[in-house]
Amino acid sequence: MRNLSMMTDLYQLTMAYGYYKHGMGENIAVFDLFYRQNRPNSAFCVVAGLEQAIEYVRDMHFSSEDIGYLRSLRLFDEEFLAYLANLRFSGDIYAIPEGTVVFPREPLLRVKAPIIQAQILETTLLNIINHQTLIATKANRVCYAANHDAVLEFGLRRAQGPDAGIYGARAAMIGGCSATSNVLTGQLYDVPVKGTHAHSWVMSFPSELEAFRAYASVFPDSCMLLVDTYDTLGSGVPNAIRVFDELREKGYEPVGIRLDSGDLAYLSIKAREMLDEAGYENAKIFVSGDLDETVIYNLKSQGARIDVYGVGTKLITSSDWPALGGVYKLSAEMVNGAIYPKMKLSDNPEKSTLPGYKKIFRLYSKKSGKAIADLIALEHEQIDSSQPLKLYHPEHTYRSMIVRDFFVRELLIPIFVDGEQVYQSPTLSEISEYARRELDTLWPESKRLLNPHEYKVDISDELYDLRKQLTWELARR
Amino acid sequence: MRNLSMMTDLYQLTMAYGYYKHGMGENIAVFDLFYRQNRPNSAFCVVAGLEQAIEYVRDMHFSSEDIGYLRSLRLFDEEFLAYLANLRFSGDIYAIPEGTVVFPREPLLRVKAPIIQAQILETTLLNIINHQTLIATKANRVCYAANHDAVLEFGLRRAQGPDAGIYGARAAMIGGCSATSNVLTGQLYDVPVKGTHAHSWVMSFPSELEAFRAYASVFPDSCMLLVDTYDTLGSGVPNAIRVFDELREKGYEPVGIRLDSGDLAYLSIKAREMLDEAGYENAKIFVSGDLDETVIYNLKSQGARIDVYGVGTKLITSSDWPALGGVYKLSAEMVNGAIYPKMKLSDNPEKSTLPGYKKIFRLYSKKSGKAIADLIALEHEQIDSSQPLKLYHPEHTYRSMIVRDFFVRELLIPIFVDGEQVYQSPTLSEISEYARRELDTLWPESKRLLNPHEYKVDISDELYDLRKQLTWELARR
Repeated sequence: MRNLSMMTDLYQLTMAYGYYKHGMGENIAVFDLFYRQNRPNSAFCVVAGLEQAIEYVRDMHFSSEDIGYLRSLRLFDEEFLAYLANLRFSGDIYAIPEGTVVFPREPLLRVKAPIIQAQILETTLLNIINHQTLIATKANRVCYAANHDAVLEFGLRRAQGPDAGIYGARAAMIGGCSATSNVLTGQLYDVPVKGTHAHSWVMSFPSELEAFRAYASVFPDSCMLLVDTYDTLGSGVPNAIRVFDELREKGYEPVGIRLDSGDLAYLSIKAREMLDEAGYENAKIFVSGDLDETVIYNLKSQGARIDVYGVGTKLITSSDWPALGGVYKLSAEMVNGAIYPKMKLSDNPEKSTLPGYKKIFRLYSKKSGKAIADLIALEHEQIDSSQPLKLYHPEHTYRSMIVRDFFVRELLIPIFVDGEQVYQSPTLSEISEYARRELDTLWPESKRLLNPHEYKVDISDELYDLRKQLTWELARR
Repeated sequence: MRNLSMMTDLYQLTMAYGYYKHGMGENIAVFDLFYRQNRPNSAFCVVAGLEQAIEYVRDMHFSSEDIGYLRSLRLFDEEFLAYLANLRFSGDIYAIPEGTVVFPREPLLRVKAPIIQAQILETTLLNIINHQTLIATKANRVCYAANHDAVLEFGLRRAQGPDAGIYGARAAMIGGCSATSNVLTGQLYDVPVKGTHAHSWVMSFPSELEAFRAYASVFPDSCMLLVDTYDTLGSGVPNAIRVFDELREKGYEPVGIRLDSGDLAYLSIKAREMLDEAGYENAKIFVSGDLDETVIYNLKSQGARIDVYGVGTKLITSSDWPALGGVYKLSAEMVNGAIYPKMKLSDNPEKSTLPGYKKIFRLYSKKSGKAIADLIALEHEQIDSSQPLKLYHPEHTYRSMIVRDFFVRELLIPIFVDGEQVYQSPTLSEISEYARRELDTLWPESKRLLNPHEYKVDISDELYDLRKQLTWELARR
C-alpha cells in the first residue's frame, strides 16, 4: 500500500495548525467512527477494511516532498511544518475485528490520540472503512440470495478505480464470495482467482467449434466454455457438448459452461437438459451478466438451474447504495486522565452523537448461541452476566425487555496502544471464515433481503443519563 | 502510480496462454473501448483517465514475484511464464483526448497490438477510463446546475477506496470543479485545495465564540467559519459576525461562512440578510451537505443565496449511476497488413458491435463553431468538407440530413505507436480548460439536465455496408 498520509482533507491540516498555534495540539481527544443507517432492507453491516486502516496508521508520516508541498500552500509556518515532519501516530485505536456483524451508532473504530493526530487520520480511516464495509455488506446480500451456491466477484473493470477493484474484491471475499477474477487481489491476499475465456476468444477463431477445441486443448482438465457468442442453444451448447465428448475420450471431465446473456432462467434450464441428456450431469452451469441479489433471488424462484454466479458491476460498486455514510465524531477529551464527554447536538435528532469514552457489549443466548442485543456503554462499565439484565428500546424507551442466561463479548479490541501496533490481522481466508460464523449468530429474520427484523442496540443507563445531561447543558447555552 | 500489471481478470491470462500455445499470440488484433449508453438524462460523457491509462500501459510488465505467483496457480507452463516476464507493450493506441465530449459507441481508445498484449490491457484500461469518465461526467452535471458558481469536490471520505478519492477528484476537476479538499490530489496534479474547519473544532473549545476567535486568529486573512454546530441563526451567524468585526478592526476582511445542515435555502437567505446588515456584503456563503445537481438546481430556483457549493458523496460516487458500462471489443484482426473486420452479433441489437478499424470525425458548423454531428468511419475514409455531406439517422436510417459549411476534426489521436509513447498528457488545469471549451461547442439543448436533445452520431456508408454484410454472414452460420 502506498503512503496515504497526504490523502486527507485540507481542513484536517488547517485545524491541526489551529490546535498547534493555540497550544492544544497535544490535547488528548477521542473520536468514534460509526455509521448512522443501514442500507435499505438490511439490518446490519459486515465491517471490513481494518487491515488497510492499520497499514495506513502505522506508516503515517509526511515526507520532505510532502512538507515542501504543504509549504507551497502558504498556510503554515515553519515551526508547524517541522512538527508535521516528525509526526507519528502515538495514540490508542480500538476496533471491531473485520468480518463482524455491526449495527448503526456502534463505534467501529475508536481513536484516542493527541487531537492533531486524531484529526489527520479522520479522512483516510473513513475512506477505507466506509468502502470495504459497503462492499462486504453488499457481497453478503448477494451471497445470501445465492444460498450456498458459489458467488464469484467479477467487477474489476467497472470498479471506481484500481483500489475499488483490489480492495473491493478483498471485501467481497469477507462478505462471502468464494473467489475473484482479480489476479492482483489473489496475489496480495492469497485467495482463489477464477476465469476462463471471453467472447473475443471465440471471435478470434474461424468458428465457435474451433475456438472451443482450441481452449479445451490448452486447459483439458479445467475446461469451462462460454456458449453465448453466437446462439446459445443453437450452436453454443451443442458445440460445447461435442468438445466435452472429445475431452472425455482423452480421459478428461469438463468443468462446465458459462452463460453471459439472454434469458438466464430459460437458457439455464434448457442447457441443463441438454448437458444431462449428453451425460454431463456434473458439468456446472455458470452465469454472469448484470446480476445482483434481486436477480439471483428471482432466478432461483423461477427454477433456474445455475451452479455458480459471477457478479460484477452491481456488487463492486454496491450500485443501489454506493456509499456507506460513516462519520468520525469527537466523543470526549481527556485532561490529566479525566474524561470530558463531548457531544454534537443537531436539529436532526438522528445526527446527535453519543457522548463519552465508550465500548460495546454483545449479549448472546447461552441456549442458542445467537446474538440477543448489543449494549453501548461507557468504558468503565461492566455487565454481570449472572444477573438478569434489563434493556430498553433505543427509541421507544418506555419499552423494555429482561435478558437472562446470556454471555457477553466486548466488541472493541485493542489495535494500537501508545502508538504500538498490538494486533495482527488474520489472513483474508481466516477473516472470511470468521465472518461466516458471525453471520450464524444472527437469527434468519435479521438476514432476509426484504424487511428484515431490526436488531436491538441499546445504550446503558449511565450513557443514557450522560446524553440527557449534556443535551440539556448544550441546549441551555 | 503503482504497477498495475497484475490487476487484470484471470481470463485475460488464460486466454493469453491459449493464444500462445496455439501460436496466435503475435497475431495483431484491434480492440475498441467504448460505452453503449449515456447516464439517464444526459446526452454525452466527458472522457477522462487517459493520463493514468498511459502510465499503466507504459509500465506494464510482470516482475519476478508476479511470475512466481502465476507459476503457483499451476495453469501455465514455463515457456509462457518466460514469455510473460519479457512482455512489454509494442502496439499502437489511439485515443480521444481527456476532457472531450463523447458519445455512445464511439471508440474512446483503440488498441492495435499482438492479441496477448491487447487482451491483458483490457481490464485495467476499462477500470481507469470507466471510473474517471463516470466522475467527470457527473461533476459536469453538478457544475452545470451551479451555473458558474464554484463547486468544490469534498467526497474523499465517502469515495470507494483511496484511488476513487484521488482520481475521482482529478476527474471532478476535468468535469468543472474549481478545487478539491483532497490534499494528495492537489499535490499530485497541482490543483487548488480548499478547506477550513469542522464541527469538532467548535466542540473542542468552551464556546462557539471562542472557537471562532481561535480560528480567526490563526487564519485572519482566509477566515471562513462553520456556523451550524449549535444554532445557525441563533448563535452561529451572530458569533461569526462578531469575530468578523474584530478581524476588520485589525484590518482583515473575512472570507465568509459555511452552512452544513438544515434548510439551506432558508438559512442562506437569512444568513445573507444578517451578513449584509452587518456590512459584510462581500462575505461568501458556502454550503455543503448531501448536495447534487438536483438539490443545487432546486436551491437556485428557491432563491437561495449561495456562492460556493461543496459537493461530496453523490459526486465522488456518482451515486445515482455509479458505473459507466464501458466495454472493450474485438473489431478487427490484421494479417500481413490486411484488415479482417470482426463483429459480435447479439440477440440484443444494442449489444452488437461496430466492425472494422475505425476512426471518428466530428463535424462543426463554420458559422456557429458548434458541433453538428459525429461520423464513425473506417480508417481509410476521408471527408471532403468542401462538398455537402449527407448523414443518416443512426437508428431510423430512412431519415437523413445534408450538412454544409462545416469543418472536420478527427477525434482519435496517436498515443502509442509501435510501443513508443508519442503523446504527452497536458497538465490537469490545461485539460480542465480544454473541457470548458469543448462544452462550449455543444448546443445548450444537449447540456440541460432533463431530457436533453440527443446528439447525432452517424456511421459512414462504408461502415454501414460492412456491418450489414458481416451481420448476414454471421447469421447465416
